Amino acid sequence: MRTQIAIIGAGPAGLLLGQLLTRAGIDNIIIEQRSPEYVLGRIRAGILESVTVDALERAGVAGRLHTEGLVHHGIALSYGGQRHHIDLHGLIGRSVTVYGQTEVTRDLMDARRADGTPTIYEAQEVSVQGFDGSTPTVRYRKDGATHEIACDYIAGCDGFHGVCRESVPAASRQVFERVYPFGWLGLLSETPPVADELVYASHERGFALCSMRSRHRSRYYVQVASSERVEDWSDERFWQELRGRLDPQTASSLVTGPSIEKSIAPLRSFVCEPMRFGRLFLAGDAAHIVPPTGAKGLNLAASDVLALSEGFEAHYRHADASGLDGYSERCLRRVWKAERFSWWMTSLLHRFPDADAFSLRMQRAELDYLVGSEAASRVLAENYVGLPY
Amino acid sequence: MRTQIAIIGAGPAGLLLGQLLTRAGIDNIIIEQRSPEYVLGRIRAGILESVTVDALERAGVAGRLHTEGLVHHGIALSYGGQRHHIDLHGLIGRSVTVYGQTEVTRDLMDARRADGTPTIYEAQEVSVQGFDGSTPTVRYRKDGATHEIACDYIAGCDGFHGVCRESVPAASRQVFERVYPFGWLGLLSETPPVADELVYASHERGFALCSMRSRHRSRYYVQVASSERVEDWSDERFWQELRGRLDPQTASSLVTGPSIEKSIAPLRSFVCEPMRFGRLFLAGDAAHIVPPTGAKGLNLAASDVLALSEGFEAHYRHADASGLDGYSERCLRRVWKAERFSWWMTSLLHRFPDADAFSLRMQRAELDYLVGSEAASRVLAENYVGLPY
Repeated sequence: MRTQIAIIGAGPAGLLLGQLLTRAGIDNIIIEQRSPEYVLGRIRAGILESVTVDALERAGVAGRLHTEGLVHHGIALSYGGQRHHIDLHGLIGRSVTVYGQTEVTRDLMDARRADGTPTIYEAQEVSVQGFDGSTPTVRYRKDGATHEIACDYIAGCDGFHGVCRESVPAASRQVFERVYPFGWLGLLSETPPVADELVYASHERGFALCSMRSRHRSRYYVQVASSERVEDWSDERFWQELRGRLDPQTASSLVTGPSIEKSIAPLRSFVCEPMRFGRLFLAGDAAHIVPPTGAKGLNLAASDVLALSEGFEAHYRHADASGLDGYSERCLRRVWKAERFSWWMTSLLHRFPDADAFSLRMQRAELDYLVGSEAASRVLAENYVGLPY
Repeated sequence: MRTQIAIIGAGPAGLLLGQLLTRAGIDNIIIEQRSPEYVLGRIRAGILESVTVDALERAGVAGRLHTEGLVHHGIALSYGGQRHHIDLHGLIGRSVTVYGQTEVTRDLMDARRADGTPTIYEAQEVSVQGFDGSTPTVRYRKDGATHEIACDYIAGCDGFHGVCRESVPAASRQVFERVYPFGWLGLLSETPPVADELVYASHERGFALCSMRSRHRSRYYVQVASSERVEDWSDERFWQELRGRLDPQTASSLVTGPSIEKSIAPLRSFVCEPMRFGRLFLAGDAAHIVPPTGAKGLNLAASDVLALSEGFEAHYRHADASGLDGYSERCLRRVWKAERFSWWMTSLLHRFPDADAFSLRMQRAELDYLVGSEAASRVLAENYVGLPY
């Protein structure tokens, strides 16, 4: 088999890249080690920046998003017993769209199936070779046989635990990492959201987030110690802990119900430099991880693949290598700004086990300043809705 | 002896308070353990917010300040080999005044001497008593005899190492503290400043600051490890280290010369809550310390004593206790905002010995964001020139 671009991973990054390439007339095959059902079963964020919405429009998959997505003009900060509104649209004239990552993935899968572009699911022992030369290949096992795909370029969209980044010799890459001493325990339920907007809560018992997937489906999170196990958290215990971390106004509106899904996710900051190694390009979680506090993970993946698809288009249509040559630097500028914002918002809102009394007062002073200063609110707003692409 | 307000400490806080009280017709005596020459010999900051300038005007001692002070409309950030201008006035329509703390002190001393208001210098074994009741007293030894001053109230303006705060039972106060693992090595020289504005430099060898006292007198600082001793720093070594931490444009303008003064100051964040204990009020460094990075120490002292003098005036003129009763809360709101800003600016610009690669990238990303975003520049500007009183 032969293709122009072999894409490793059928998550939203790989699928969006494939869709953008297909529409640009560039051959591509996606190789994914899991099944489509498994990929769709992963519950992730759902706050889309306008850059991401633009990318989905360009990929031709924004129809349902515009019908079902919820445009949010603001967010709320809850602390010290009060809820404070941050008017994103009033501050900077832009907003975000709430639309679950699962839905984005489903729309992209449907479009790919309709186009008939090949996706190889349940590929085992995926490996990438030869990207330091001119003839890269992807190998995998399926149905008892070994297969090989020859390609011009490989796009590593296979996430933090994928094979692509790890196939690069360690001496050729530099990694930057911060593991936070806590995780997020998330609960999905078929209940109306507690508020019209997302509520980020900072409480002495820890961070909490009231998020949503739709007007009838809510996603809540509470910060838990890294040592916590999901088995120890009954729905009842979760709701009680969540309610205790919210201001009275928000807590009184909380509608509880049985969980559909419940899981604990670790929090990590991670960047791999560079994002290109010869004919291998990393995109999304394969190259960088942000803690979910700033809702930047999916959005960074979208801007990575937008830049990558533009690079491939310029290369194949106009023999212009500048987009591919500048890919890593262009993406990393944006990545580091989002890493900074995600780290800052995580540091601001969470309780750190080693925090002393002075650190706690710094958090409180920063929250007070943030809601009291228009300039500070604007800093939050412009980062939250996404810095210019 | 008897007075209305006994002020402990003849630094700028105590002297300014005395001057404001004298002008309001309120009797006061200052008790200071050092000599006037010693007080004037302390080299300190000299960046005055407009609130501080207003307070000095109200005290009637702003004449020379307006003649000799330098109004600065901006500051510069130097990092990554480049100098970036932060246009304070353009961003928020306000500026700062450069006028050495020594000069402020001298003006206040001169005014007090002209008024004939009593100051007791070289008072030994100063102690404060009875402030938890209705008859506070100040005792001290001088010229071989013990003296006692009865008063209505005591103003503790005796700095971080003073007796006032420590005279309050530890159980009645809460302290918040952060000691930074480095100090500032400062050098004063009779040389023209390297630039028209202050230059704050962040470099892999550490922080540096190019400051000034006048158009002919410069004050430079380099971050040094807490273990460094000033004896090990020749002028030549200082200038070489400073030059190495500046961008080429700034470094090339550096005029060096013999040092007039050279010293190492530790960096500390400290707050004591509350700032009132019965009839004892703490003001300035007696209640709180900021690292000098944000130039907030003298300015916080000025706003403290402004609030305190207003409280005393309302009390004596109108029998209105609200100003004194609200003193601590009012000041602490402002103090914590300045503590946050000073901590943030210190964290942003210094090298921390335990910083990992991720932390260093966060600093760099924050600097890039700061100079590239108007909202972020405005946050720096509004804090640097001083938040509203």
